[in-house]
Amino acid sequence: MNEFDFIRRLRNQAGSRKHSARLITGIGDDAAVVNQFANRDLIITTDLLIEGVDFYRDIAPARVFGHKALAVSLSDIAAMGARPFWSLLSIGMPGATWRDDFKDEFFAGYFALADRYGVTLSGGDVSEAKEGVLIDSIVLGEVASGTAVLRSGAQPGDQIYVTGTLGAAAAGLKLIEMGARLGASGLASLPHAGKRGTSPSVREGVSPEEAGTAEVKAIESLLLRQLRPSPRVGWGIVLGEERLATSMIDISDGLSSDLAHLCEESNAGALIDSSSLPIDRDVIKLCGRRALDPLMLALHGGEDFELLFTVTPDDVTRLPKRVDGVEICRIGEINDQPGKVRVAEKNRVWNLPRGGFEHFGTSG
Amino acid sequence: MNEFDFIRRLRNQAGSRKHSARLITGIGDDAAVVNQFANRDLIITTDLLIEGVDFYRDIAPARVFGHKALAVSLSDIAAMGARPFWSLLSIGMPGATWRDDFKDEFFAGYFALADRYGVTLSGGDVSEAKEGVLIDSIVLGEVASGTAVLRSGAQPGDQIYVTGTLGAAAAGLKLIEMGARLGASGLASLPHAGKRGTSPSVREGVSPEEAGTAEVKAIESLLLRQLRPSPRVGWGIVLGEERLATSMIDISDGLSSDLAHLCEESNAGALIDSSSLPIDRDVIKLCGRRALDPLMLALHGGEDFELLFTVTPDDVTRLPKRVDGVEICRIGEINDQPGKVRVAEKNRVWNLPRGGFEHFGTSG
Repeated sequence: MNEFDFIRRLRNQAGSRKHSARLITGIGDDAAVVNQFANRDLIITTDLLIEGVDFYRDIAPARVFGHKALAVSLSDIAAMGARPFWSLLSIGMPGATWRDDFKDEFFAGYFALADRYGVTLSGGDVSEAKEGVLIDSIVLGEVASGTAVLRSGAQPGDQIYVTGTLGAAAAGLKLIEMGARLGASGLASLPHAGKRGTSPSVREGVSPEEAGTAEVKAIESLLLRQLRPSPRVGWGIVLGEERLATSMIDISDGLSSDLAHLCEESNAGALIDSSSLPIDRDVIKLCGRRALDPLMLALHGGEDFELLFTVTPDDVTRLPKRVDGVEICRIGEINDQPGKVRVAEKNRVWNLPRGGFEHFGTSG
Repeated sequence: MNEFDFIRRLRNQAGSRKHSARLITGIGDDAAVVNQFANRDLIITTDLLIEGVDFYRDIAPARVFGHKALAVSLSDIAAMGARPFWSLLSIGMPGATWRDDFKDEFFAGYFALADRYGVTLSGGDVSEAKEGVLIDSIVLGEVASGTAVLRSGAQPGDQIYVTGTLGAAAAGLKLIEMGARLGASGLASLPHAGKRGTSPSVREGVSPEEAGTAEVKAIESLLLRQLRPSPRVGWGIVLGEERLATSMIDISDGLSSDLAHLCEESNAGALIDSSSLPIDRDVIKLCGRRALDPLMLALHGGEDFELLFTVTPDDVTRLPKRVDGVEICRIGEINDQPGKVRVAEKNRVWNLPRGGFEHFGTSG
């Protein structure tokens, strides 16, 4: 199959989906064409994923990466309070990968998530890569004019909330570093004790079948949080369309970094209450306090792709309890001390350094 | 400089430019926000450029690649008859490249072209790459609703036109393969005779200073057509907004391939007249008929980024002679023989195989 055949097939797959209203021309022309409404603002985001840096092909089936490529961009759209509609995908692959079944599995995962949220793949580019797969995921969405939820809208007194739970994706990454792998039907290999003694409670050298079911389930759950994150699309739409969030960001670098970004853009500070943080239950279960502190994973661990947002005190009662089965949790309050993000833990208050993932160098 | 500092600086560079009307939020939030007009269709394109496949850093200054990354996407927007407005850029770089001056030069070239056409860089992503620089260039533009010029609109009897000249980019690539390099102030090294005897008329082993001025100028011109293509933005806008083109595509794979795409999408055929093809004068000057046939370069050479379009016989008189100093040339006519692209050369007519550049495999 050559590039043109591949694009023709993708076009058929994308075109046969039901969510293509307003897409005038998708895959197969020089560019995609989307009909515009008045009084709407267009939201556009792009995320670059590079094999060997952002993902490793040997740790999970390819459909997992197809899911994640779209999920990270949907998360950005959600963080603007927007509704996603269209996507584009640029993909580079070495010749050998082009010929194996990676791309079919990848697109199966991609389309499954796109269908779930009514997103239409509208274009993209395919190129040969010298080494490793690389993916640029682009998603477009919309909001009513002027209602995009920016990072800059938080005011002193606003209550800080987070969706879902924290720390699971970072714990999942640790498990992968320790050898855990995902097969087509779930956990394929268990983590083994690393040199640094950071093993979870799973016994070394046992197969998934021999380990306790609860333990295996917890490990699988953490791996999936890292490999197959759930973008909070529903929450993003509700918070944006109901004008509930005054500011919002998705947690990709880690709570400490992303809250600092939000405070910086809002020219404000934040005090968060450590006891209120929704640390993932599987993180608490598997990570011994000594080796991997669940609180540190929750504060600094990246890629949870939860939404971090602020709400005026008056609007707190308007917040729904859950959206798509996902709850939210109040974790602190915005104050008027720009640049200061602090944590109240028992009787002390400490400054929270930015400890999340950064691509290059050290934090500024 | 870390990633955040870099993004902050880019944001300042992009924000200080004058063409940011309707861009509500650009670099620095989770996504870009663009205000939408009614009765407009949005045009979106993306192009992936990979070091070692699509470009080679040692053959030209980095600003040339910044120019080209944007130029190829602007060419797609032009091929839709649209006016470009916004852009996004995803860029992956190894740590060492991140620290050298590549990115500054790259963005200098990128912004120079963006400013020329009033395009605002509105977002993107930055990631570390394991090996080599990779760039995904995204451009957004607009047309009045329903006026995007598709590949599928050609009708039998329509006249086929092409902007500018053909074959120069392919000749430039041959010169690069033979050792020609571009320095900061022009030609840095001359091509030398290859094993296949495909040398142009430049003498081997002489410096650019010793070679004839006319010859050096011709080589420089061909190199620049390959490395620093000029997207036909002005022609695209005129052909779209004046409703002159019934179908259009940009010549990226080569005339033979791209005309075949256009005919396939239009369910039509084409007959082109070889004597009318606007072969680049420098190609004729430098490429001996025996070693590198200028006609073959014009028919099959890729990356000229000229516009190939069709016009009804009635509208031919409405065509402007030139736009932005670039002329057009009638090269043939659309007919009702689907899938057949033929060339009339002197007394014979032959089928034109698709011989342009393809990323993978063989043509289908």
